[in-house]
Amino acid sequence: MIGLVSLVGAGPGDPELLTVRAVKRLQEADLVLYDALVDRAALHHAPHARWAYVGKRAGRHSIAQETIERVMIRRALRGERIVRLKSGDPFVFGRGGEEALALAEAGVPVEIVPGVSAAVAGPALSGIPVTHRGLASAFVVVSGHAESAYLPVLGSLAPQAATVVVLMGLATRARLAALLLSRGWARETPAAIVLAAATPHSHTWRGTLADLAKGDTEARLRAATMSPARPGLLVIGDVVRIAEQLESMQSQPQRATGV
Amino acid sequence: MIGLVSLVGAGPGDPELLTVRAVKRLQEADLVLYDALVDRAALHHAPHARWAYVGKRAGRHSIAQETIERVMIRRALRGERIVRLKSGDPFVFGRGGEEALALAEAGVPVEIVPGVSAAVAGPALSGIPVTHRGLASAFVVVSGHAESAYLPVLGSLAPQAATVVVLMGLATRARLAALLLSRGWARETPAAIVLAAATPHSHTWRGTLADLAKGDTEARLRAATMSPARPGLLVIGDVVRIAEQLESMQSQPQRATGV
Repeated sequence: MIGLVSLVGAGPGDPELLTVRAVKRLQEADLVLYDALVDRAALHHAPHARWAYVGKRAGRHSIAQETIERVMIRRALRGERIVRLKSGDPFVFGRGGEEALALAEAGVPVEIVPGVSAAVAGPALSGIPVTHRGLASAFVVVSGHAESAYLPVLGSLAPQAATVVVLMGLATRARLAALLLSRGWARETPAAIVLAAATPHSHTWRGTLADLAKGDTEARLRAATMSPARPGLLVIGDVVRIAEQLESMQSQPQRATGV
Repeated sequence: MIGLVSLVGAGPGDPELLTVRAVKRLQEADLVLYDALVDRAALHHAPHARWAYVGKRAGRHSIAQETIERVMIRRALRGERIVRLKSGDPFVFGRGGEEALALAEAGVPVEIVPGVSAAVAGPALSGIPVTHRGLASAFVVVSGHAESAYLPVLGSLAPQAATVVVLMGLATRARLAALLLSRGWARETPAAIVLAAATPHSHTWRGTLADLAKGDTEARLRAATMSPARPGLLVIGDVVRIAEQLESMQSQPQRATGV
């Protein structure tokens, strides 16, 4: 009897943002292979499983992708039910496609359990909708880890044509912002940095594209970004103003309304 | 005592893709206002609540946005706990931002419960990762309902620079595809149409950008798209090939592997 590998999205951090199916698969699992940024509270749903941390961390030794795939194949062929628990969604910069192909090639049944992606939920939990009537009818999600990843999109997109969400863009934020300015984006375009979204340590910085380009961000942010365990994402576009509006309304004393 | 309005993402259709928090909010709800495309099975989690359908459907009378907001404000000010259950994620073409602003302005506490967006999960459940090492390090999500919504992005993006996901793009798919071709995208760029993602009626068509532009899609698809209750999304980019590769591997007889 052959087992099953479920490539499961754990959501952006908060364990309550796991899906019902993710919880079910964890409950039935024999083995859980989990990544960096997955909240360990998720593992409480898998009391009978062995858990193995296979995440990558900046500057540390990490388990080769090939090894992870080999372990999953070997165990599944023995009949085990395996959950490959990935931060966010397995198909948004999660190498889910590569793993699915390797498993399918080895004759192992594989299923995808989509998760809540930090690309949308990170901004949302900071009050920023990636789309908003009159402000943005499109959004772009791009990896900021290398110029070759973001240049084709950010170097061609017309200024202000869409909300831009950059994952893994903390280190390159000044260069990214400079690129957009050189392409004609307005200096006053609202921008935000969301650190550790959907965790108790979450922190949002808001400013303009020009601030981002200058690296002109507060000390607290600089300190936070030095911790490799704190992921961060950038949001660039008029929709960032919605968070500002929500905040200013919510800080007002409650008014009686005539509704 | 003032209540709470939770703007909750119901996910792409399958009730098991609700989040744990969405289920909790439904269990505690006094009133659930739900949209078209939300699977009614989700409402089983809210046995004590009143449920009201407030969705819009092509060609039918629908409740005005203003009325929905007024009802939420009035009930919340009476102390009720309200779940506004939206298909997918509330901030991806869900008018979540507008509703959050209206509620905050009226002094009503509002929270966002992000959901699994069909923009990522729809392709994923058809075997298509929106990003994939070597094929796409970015994706664009755009509404296809009107040219003014998609032209700024699709008219400027460099050919093949990102995976393109179009929500609400069934009706305009030929024009959209023609626009990309006119911008220099390759005729052979793989393309897919995912109908009724994450439901038992889901159906995927795969072909090329040139096929899409010709409206050259199969009869079953034409029939399916005539039902306004069946949402559809387009995916354009090399990542569509992954679904093909997965399918061809999975249809092979199981092989013994030496792992």
